[in-house]
Amino acid sequence: MASFFITGASRGFGLALVKELLALPTSKVSKIIASSRSDSSALSEVVNSSSGRAEWVKLDVTDQESIKKAAAETEAKLGGKGLDVLINNAGICEYAFQGTKSMDNLSSSFLVNVQGVHWVTQAFFPLLEKGQLKKVANISTTLGSISLAEHFVQFPGPAYKITKAALNALTVQWALDHEKDGFTFIALCPGWMKTELGGGDMADLTAEQGAKASLDIIFNKSQKEVNGKLPKVFVEGWDKPAPGRANVYDGTNAPW
Amino acid sequence: MASFFITGASRGFGLALVKELLALPTSKVSKIIASSRSDSSALSEVVNSSSGRAEWVKLDVTDQESIKKAAAETEAKLGGKGLDVLINNAGICEYAFQGTKSMDNLSSSFLVNVQGVHWVTQAFFPLLEKGQLKKVANISTTLGSISLAEHFVQFPGPAYKITKAALNALTVQWALDHEKDGFTFIALCPGWMKTELGGGDMADLTAEQGAKASLDIIFNKSQKEVNGKLPKVFVEGWDKPAPGRANVYDGTNAPW
Repeated sequence: MASFFITGASRGFGLALVKELLALPTSKVSKIIASSRSDSSALSEVVNSSSGRAEWVKLDVTDQESIKKAAAETEAKLGGKGLDVLINNAGICEYAFQGTKSMDNLSSSFLVNVQGVHWVTQAFFPLLEKGQLKKVANISTTLGSISLAEHFVQFPGPAYKITKAALNALTVQWALDHEKDGFTFIALCPGWMKTELGGGDMADLTAEQGAKASLDIIFNKSQKEVNGKLPKVFVEGWDKPAPGRANVYDGTNAPW
Repeated sequence: MASFFITGASRGFGLALVKELLALPTSKVSKIIASSRSDSSALSEVVNSSSGRAEWVKLDVTDQESIKKAAAETEAKLGGKGLDVLINNAGICEYAFQGTKSMDNLSSSFLVNVQGVHWVTQAFFPLLEKGQLKKVANISTTLGSISLAEHFVQFPGPAYKITKAALNALTVQWALDHEKDGFTFIALCPGWMKTELGGGDMADLTAEQGAKASLDIIFNKSQKEVNGKLPKVFVEGWDKPAPGRANVYDGTNAPW
């Protein structure tokens, strides 16, 4: 009977999460509040055919007023119950094709990928305190692992890597502060997916595969296993190294 | 015959660096350009008694116009020669005494500690390319190590920790891009010092100790040892664990 709030739900991985949650029984997932800056026809369709189980809330994660309004609307929609799971999925991946010295999008990336997540978490924290599961999944990536930076040197997104490292650090600060209150804050790496952000068909997983495997972590991993950690998803068939594959999805925690 | 440019040089660790550099022979350190938002009497005194070896340049690291102007002035002061070492020292340490959920200074910390460092590095990069040593030291801290976060849970500065983690990630991006060009980018941890930022007398080292030991790293460690790394200073008497001491300054690289 868990309730979910998801940012960046109009397309890609966020939309896939909404669909996967709707495919689960009502006994497991009672309510899904899908948010985005603007509605999309794909999300509308999903919401409209959900018999009220999924609802849309307008939310721009870069705008504190919009966040406060969304939190108030969510509170009303939950009818006095708390929120169980917050998935901070909204994010941007900006490039610097001439290398780090040409990077001119660090602050804009930071605003969405780090500051936005912090503001949303602050605004929804009182609702999460009233919830049962007390889980926050910040969608991250091993591209934000400083230890693995050398392996991803060909990927021309320094602002993405740096701000995801900062998101990981933010996640750990929240995790350490509220572990004793029963919270689990996860920097969750859903894998490289065939979405617009992911760059399309070259990627490893479908958004559906990433969403299913991410919900596996959210539902089944314990606080001890993933609080303040960077777990990778487990995807069968992708859990061992194979020729021509750069990534392995074996469900282990990635290093910082 | 190395030339240095230092940000945040009006007090504390930055000022101590200027003094330590002036204490070295001219054969080793030819020119020190000390920058800060506004001049301080302490820095003026040091500059005025340096017989022209140290000079002051106005620089606000949060203002791109100010940075460009400072880079042009520095180029003129170097008289056609390149810059050897850039020390990105300017930084702020902001607090959130009610925990991460009360943190309202993440963006302001990011602007100085990360974006400011990136803008300064971009603006001074052409001068560094013309220099001999090609070294950039970004003043960081083990408080920015995500792996060590648990050890520093009592320190109420989440914005400082998160933005220093981002600074570490930024340093690694620059380091990987320009290793082949002979550059060394260091995320340098000078130790906990008795400065205004450090919180005064409770700290471990004097600013002079931190400055001497940091210059040791800058002058003597190889590209292979510290490029894209987080070295701690080596301070004799502090290089082994001792009762009542939280920190060890043994010259090793800290984990991310």
